[in-house]
Amino acid sequence: MTGFAGMEAARLLWSHPGATLASATGRSLAGQKLGEAFPHLASYGDLLITEEIESEVDIVFSALPTAASAEACAPFVRKGIPVIDIAADFRLTDPEVFKEWFGQPHPAPDLLPQAVYGLPELRRSQIQSAKLVANPGCYPAASLLALAPAVSAGIVGDQVVVDAKSGISGAGRGTGGGYAYSDVNEDVSAYKIANHNHQPEIAQELAALGEGPPPKVTFVPHLVPMTRGIHATCYAPLRSGVTQSDVVALYRDFYSDAPFTRVADAPPHTKHTLGSNYCLVHPKVDERNGMLVAIGVLDNLMKGAAGQAIENMNLMLGLPQDAGLNFPAVYP
Amino acid sequence: MTGFAGMEAARLLWSHPGATLASATGRSLAGQKLGEAFPHLASYGDLLITEEIESEVDIVFSALPTAASAEACAPFVRKGIPVIDIAADFRLTDPEVFKEWFGQPHPAPDLLPQAVYGLPELRRSQIQSAKLVANPGCYPAASLLALAPAVSAGIVGDQVVVDAKSGISGAGRGTGGGYAYSDVNEDVSAYKIANHNHQPEIAQELAALGEGPPPKVTFVPHLVPMTRGIHATCYAPLRSGVTQSDVVALYRDFYSDAPFTRVADAPPHTKHTLGSNYCLVHPKVDERNGMLVAIGVLDNLMKGAAGQAIENMNLMLGLPQDAGLNFPAVYP
Amino acid sequence: MTGFAGMEAARLLWSHPGATLASATGRSLAGQKLGEAFPHLASYGDLLITEEIESEVDIVFSALPTAASAEACAPFVRKGIPVIDIAADFRLTDPEVFKEWFGQPHPAPDLLPQAVYGLPELRRSQIQSAKLVANPGCYPAASLLALAPAVSAGIVGDQVVVDAKSGISGAGRGTGGGYAYSDVNEDVSAYKIANHNHQPEIAQELAALGEGPPPKVTFVPHLVPMTRGIHATCYAPLRSGVTQSDVVALYRDFYSDAPFTRVADAPPHTKHTLGSNYCLVHPKVDERNGMLVAIGVLDNLMKGAAGQAIENMNLMLGLPQDAGLNFPAVYP
Amino acid sequence: MTGFAGMEAARLLWSHPGATLASATGRSLAGQKLGEAFPHLASYGDLLITEEIESEVDIVFSALPTAASAEACAPFVRKGIPVIDIAADFRLTDPEVFKEWFGQPHPAPDLLPQAVYGLPELRRSQIQSAKLVANPGCYPAASLLALAPAVSAGIVGDQVVVDAKSGISGAGRGTGGGYAYSDVNEDVSAYKIANHNHQPEIAQELAALGEGPPPKVTFVPHLVPMTRGIHATCYAPLRSGVTQSDVVALYRDFYSDAPFTRVADAPPHTKHTLGSNYCLVHPKVDERNGMLVAIGVLDNLMKGAAGQAIENMNLMLGLPQDAGLNFPAVYP
Repeated sequence: MTGFAGMEAARLLWSHPGATLASATGRSLAGQKLGEAFPHLASYGDLLITEEIESEVDIVFSALPTAASAEACAPFVRKGIPVIDIAADFRLTDPEVFKEWFGQPHPAPDLLPQAVYGLPELRRSQIQSAKLVANPGCYPAASLLALAPAVSAGIVGDQVVVDAKSGISGAGRGTGGGYAYSDVNEDVSAYKIANHNHQPEIAQELAALGEGPPPKVTFVPHLVPMTRGIHATCYAPLRSGVTQSDVVALYRDFYSDAPFTRVADAPPHTKHTLGSNYCLVHPKVDERNGMLVAIGVLDNLMKGAAGQAIENMNLMLGLPQDAGLNFPAVYP
Repeated sequence: MTGFAGMEAARLLWSHPGATLASATGRSLAGQKLGEAFPHLASYGDLLITEEIESEVDIVFSALPTAASAEACAPFVRKGIPVIDIAADFRLTDPEVFKEWFGQPHPAPDLLPQAVYGLPELRRSQIQSAKLVANPGCYPAASLLALAPAVSAGIVGDQVVVDAKSGISGAGRGTGGGYAYSDVNEDVSAYKIANHNHQPEIAQELAALGEGPPPKVTFVPHLVPMTRGIHATCYAPLRSGVTQSDVVALYRDFYSDAPFTRVADAPPHTKHTLGSNYCLVHPKVDERNGMLVAIGVLDNLMKGAAGQAIENMNLMLGLPQDAGLNFPAVYP
Repeated sequence: MTGFAGMEAARLLWSHPGATLASATGRSLAGQKLGEAFPHLASYGDLLITEEIESEVDIVFSALPTAASAEACAPFVRKGIPVIDIAADFRLTDPEVFKEWFGQPHPAPDLLPQAVYGLPELRRSQIQSAKLVANPGCYPAASLLALAPAVSAGIVGDQVVVDAKSGISGAGRGTGGGYAYSDVNEDVSAYKIANHNHQPEIAQELAALGEGPPPKVTFVPHLVPMTRGIHATCYAPLRSGVTQSDVVALYRDFYSDAPFTRVADAPPHTKHTLGSNYCLVHPKVDERNGMLVAIGVLDNLMKGAAGQAIENMNLMLGLPQDAGLNFPAVYP
Repeated sequence: MTGFAGMEAARLLWSHPGATLASATGRSLAGQKLGEAFPHLASYGDLLITEEIESEVDIVFSALPTAASAEACAPFVRKGIPVIDIAADFRLTDPEVFKEWFGQPHPAPDLLPQAVYGLPELRRSQIQSAKLVANPGCYPAASLLALAPAVSAGIVGDQVVVDAKSGISGAGRGTGGGYAYSDVNEDVSAYKIANHNHQPEIAQELAALGEGPPPKVTFVPHLVPMTRGIHATCYAPLRSGVTQSDVVALYRDFYSDAPFTRVADAPPHTKHTLGSNYCLVHPKVDERNGMLVAIGVLDNLMKGAAGQAIENMNLMLGLPQDAGLNFPAVYP
C-alpha cells in the first residue's frame, strides 16, 4: 500500500464518509508512521505502516508487484473477505495468456473464474456481487472507455490502434533507469512498442464487447513530462455512413448512467481530471479517411488506479457509487 | 470569480458540507455555463456565470482587480452582508501606504477601520466577528506564517530578508507578457525586486506582532516553473543564545491550535501542500552566522487565496474552521 | 524573423562559418536591438530589428504568417534572390488544395511551379538548384522522415495514422488562448483532430514517394508540456512477410547518405535532439497485428524549422550541407 | 567523465576548433561506445568509454566523486600534465576546512599550494600559468560573480545571505532519493540549509576579494523543477550613500573584459543562459532598507561546470579564451 496507488487510496479514504483506513502495509517502509513516510498524509497521525494487516478489515486492497499480489490476496479471498487487486494478476481471464505476457505461471488460477474486471461502466452489477475484483490497468481504463461504445455498437472494424501518452507516475515509485527528472523532463519517448502487457487486457475486454472476431490492437505507450494523466488516442476504421452526430449520440447514451465518465464536446485535457475520478471521452469522425478517432483521458492514479478501486469498493459494500469521490479536479 | 482564485473557491464550495455556491460572477465569461468555461467544474451543470450577483447570498467573495474589488465590495458591506475580499484593497490599514504602493487613492477608506486581516493563525477571534475580511496575499501568507512565532517572541532582529519562489498561477490567468509556457518553462527569474506590493503587507503585519521598531523587510519574489506553490525562505538575525531546539519548541507551541499550519521536521516541499489548505513551516538556526532561516510553504491558490477564504468564511459564519477543507494534498 | 523560427535562425547564423546575419526584420519589435528583444542574442550587439530588409543580402528567410509570407517572398524571388520560406505558403503544389485548407486563394500561384519542398533526405539535388524552397512544416518533417523508406519501398498499405506529440514552442510565440504556462503544464491534449493543415502536406509528399494510390492519412496532433520536440508515431499496415530486420536494413540504407537523419536501435527520445538538427527514426514491426510502427523525433525549431532552413541554405549556396549545424544536442 | 559534467565536456569538445576528445573514462559504462551510452553524442562513432585513460593526452579533466578525484588527478599533476578538476577536491585552500566539511582528510594536501581556483573573472593570469585548476562549484560560480564587484569595492557589509535555486541536473546523474520525476516536478524545496559544502568555498573566495573581516555567509540551496540553471540571489547590507547607478557602473567596469559575464539591465532569466557559457549578473539597490540585491544566473553544467572547464583549458593551453564556447543560449 505504499506505492503511488496505495498512497492515493489512503488520501481518498481520509475523506471517505463510509470507510476508514484500518491498516496500511508496506515492506520497505514498515515501522514508520504513514504521515512521516508521506508528509501529505500527516493527518493520519500515529498510524503505523506494518508488514502485515494487523487488524480486522472489511475489505482489502492490494497493490503489490505481479504474482506477489495474487499470493497476498488469495488467503483473504478464501476466507470470504472481499479483495480489490490493483495489480495485474486477475485481469486476464486465461492463465495461458497471463503466462505468455508475464513470463510465469499464474499464481492462483483457481481464483480466476470468480474475478470480475472492475470497470463499472461495463460491469457494474457483476462488481456489486463480486468478492474478487481485478482493478483495471491505467492504460486499459482510458482506452476501453474511449472505445467501448463504438465496439459495442459494432460500428468499427477490427484493426485498432491505441496510441497512449502517460505521465511519469504511471511508472510507479521506482527511481531507477529512465525516471530521473533530468532524463524525463522536456522529453517524449515511446516504450515497449506493441509489447506492453496492457495490450492483451485491452484486447480481451474489447473482444467481450463486440460480436465479431477479436480486434487486433496495436498498442504503443509513451511517457510525457508530467506527473499524472493518461491520454489514450484510439483509431479504428468506421463503418461507412456513420456520422459525427450518430457517434456523439451513441456515446452520450452509453454513458448516461455513468457518474464518472463524461462525453466532452471539445478535445479533453488530462489536466481537467487531475486528482479526480473522472474520465473524459471524445469521439471524432475523420470523414476524409473513414476513421474514428476516440480519445479517453483520466488521472492514472485515480480513475486509472486508486479512485477506481474506491469506486469498486463502494459498489461491493453497497455504498453510493460516488461516495468519497464526488469532487472536482484540481485545476490549474 | 472567474480568475484562478474564484475558480478554486468554486471547486471547494462544491464539496463543502455547509455552504453552496449561489452565484458566480465574471465579466469576460458572463453568459457561459461555469462548467463549460471551466470543464473541471462540469458538475455544476447549468449554473451560469453572470455579470452581477443575481440571487440572495449569505456571504460574498470578491477577487477583482485592485480598486474594482473595493468598489464591488462596498455596497455589500454597507448592507451588512459579510464580505471576504481576496484582492489587495483592504489589507493595508493606512490609506497613504495604499496610495504609495498602488499609485491611486484608496477607493473606500471609510471601510478600512472595520477590515480585518484574515490570517486566522494571527487573528482568529477578530475574524469570527468581522463583516469585512481582507484575505492575505499569497506571499505574505507564507512569509508571515514562517516568521510570526520568531517575531512575536522577539528573538530576531529587525533586518529581514524574504526570498520567495512562486508557481506561475500566482500571476493569475493573464496570458500576456512573460507567462507563456515556452518562456517560463525551464526558467527561474526574479521580478519586482524590492518593489512588490506584498512588501508593505508583510512589513505591516510583522510590525503588529513585535514590540520593537518595525522590521525592515527586503522582499524579492521569483517565478519558478510550476503551476502552484509558494516557498518563502526568510532570513533574520537571531538573538544570541537561542538554539535550534528553543526555536522548534517555540514554533510548535505557537501553532498548537492551528488546524492548517504544521511545523515540519525536515525542509518542506511545496508539493506536499498541493491542492490542500496546509502551510508547512520549518525554522532552522544557522549557528555559524547567528541567522534564523524560516521557511513557509503553501499552495498559493489554497492557503494563499481560496482555501484561506473558505477558512475565513467558516469562521465568520460559525462553521467548524476546517469545514470543507479537511483533506490531504494531491501527491505526487 | 522575430518569431521562434526567426530567433532560432539568428542563433544558428551567429556561429555559422560561411554566412552572416545581415538584416533582421520584425514588425512589432522594429526599432529595438535584436539583443535587447532577445537577451540570449546579446552577442549581436547593436544590430537593429527593422521593418524591411535594409541591406544587400544573398539569401532571404521568411517566417511570416500565411499569405503575408508569400507576398513578402515574391519580390525577392522575382529579382532572382534565393528565398527560403519557413511559412506554409509554397509547400502545397496545388493552389486548390491550399485554398481548401487555408480558406483563401493562394497569393502567388505563379511561383508554385518553381518552389521545391525542402526536405533534403527526399530532394537534395532539386534544392541545390532551387531559387525558392518551401521549408517543411515541423510535423511533416518528422512524419515523412519516419515513413519515407517504407512508403518508397512499397511495403505498407495506404491507410496511415500519424499521431504526433509536440512541445509548445510549435505553437509559436503567441501567448493567447491555451498557451499560458498554467494551462499547459501537467497537461496533454489533442487539437485540430484530423483537421490540421499539415495533413495535406504529409499526404502530398507520401503520394510523391509511392507508386500506388495516394495514402489516406489520419493526422492527430497533440500538445505535451515541454518547450521543444516533436514525436511522430506513425502506423501503417505492413505487407505480410516483411520482418523487423528487413525494415531496419531498408531504413539504414535509405538514410546512409543523410547527415542529419539517424536510424535508432531503441525508441528515440525527443530530448536527444534538443537544440540540434538531428532527426532520429525508429521502425518497429508489430508482428501480432501486421502493423509497422515508425517513429520520427526532432527539435521542431531545428530540423523542424530553422535548422532545416540553414541546411537548405547550405545546399542552395553550395556550402557543405552540415555547415554551422555539426554539433550535438544539449542533453540533459 | 560519464556524469553530467563529463557528458557536457564531450559535447563541447566535439565542436571545439582547437581540441579533440582523445579518451573518455567511466567506471559503470566502461566498454560501451560513448554514442550508445549517450545517444546525443552519436557523432563520436566508435569511441569507447574506458576505465583508464588509454592514449596520450595534453590535458586531463576529472569529474569523479570527492577524494577519488584528487587521487585520480595526482599522478597526472606529478607527471606535469595539466589537470582541471571539476570535483571539489582542490577548491578549498585549507585542508582543515576540507576535513571539516567533507568529513575526511584531504587526499593530496601537498598539491593544494599549486591549485588555482578556476574562475577567470577573478584569476585569469593565475589560471594561464597553472598546472592544476580547481573548477568552481556551480553555486559558488553564480554567487561569486554576483557579489565580486561589490565585495572587491568594499561597499557591502559582512553579513551575506545567498539564496540559490538550482535545476535538478545540479544533483548529478544519481536517480536515488528525491530526484525521481514525480517527486521533483511541481515542487520547490530547500536542502542542506546552511550546511552545504559550497558555503566555505563562497566564503573563502569572498574573503580573498575584500579587505575587512571574512564575510559571514548564510547559504541556502533550493531545488526547482527544471533541468539546467542556477539563480543565485545574494543579499548584503550596502554602505550608505551608494546609489543604483554607482553600483551598475561598478559592475560594468568590473566585467568589461570578461567574455562570458554580462551585466543585465533587467532581472535575468536562467533560460537566457541555457546551453551556453554566459553568466548574467544584475545588481539592484533596495533603497528603503539599505540592502544590495545581487543576482547571478548561469547554466550549472556550462559556466557552472563543463563550459567553465573548457574556458580554463583554453587559458591553460594558450588558446583564445572563448574558443569553442562562442555561441548563444538555446532559447526558448
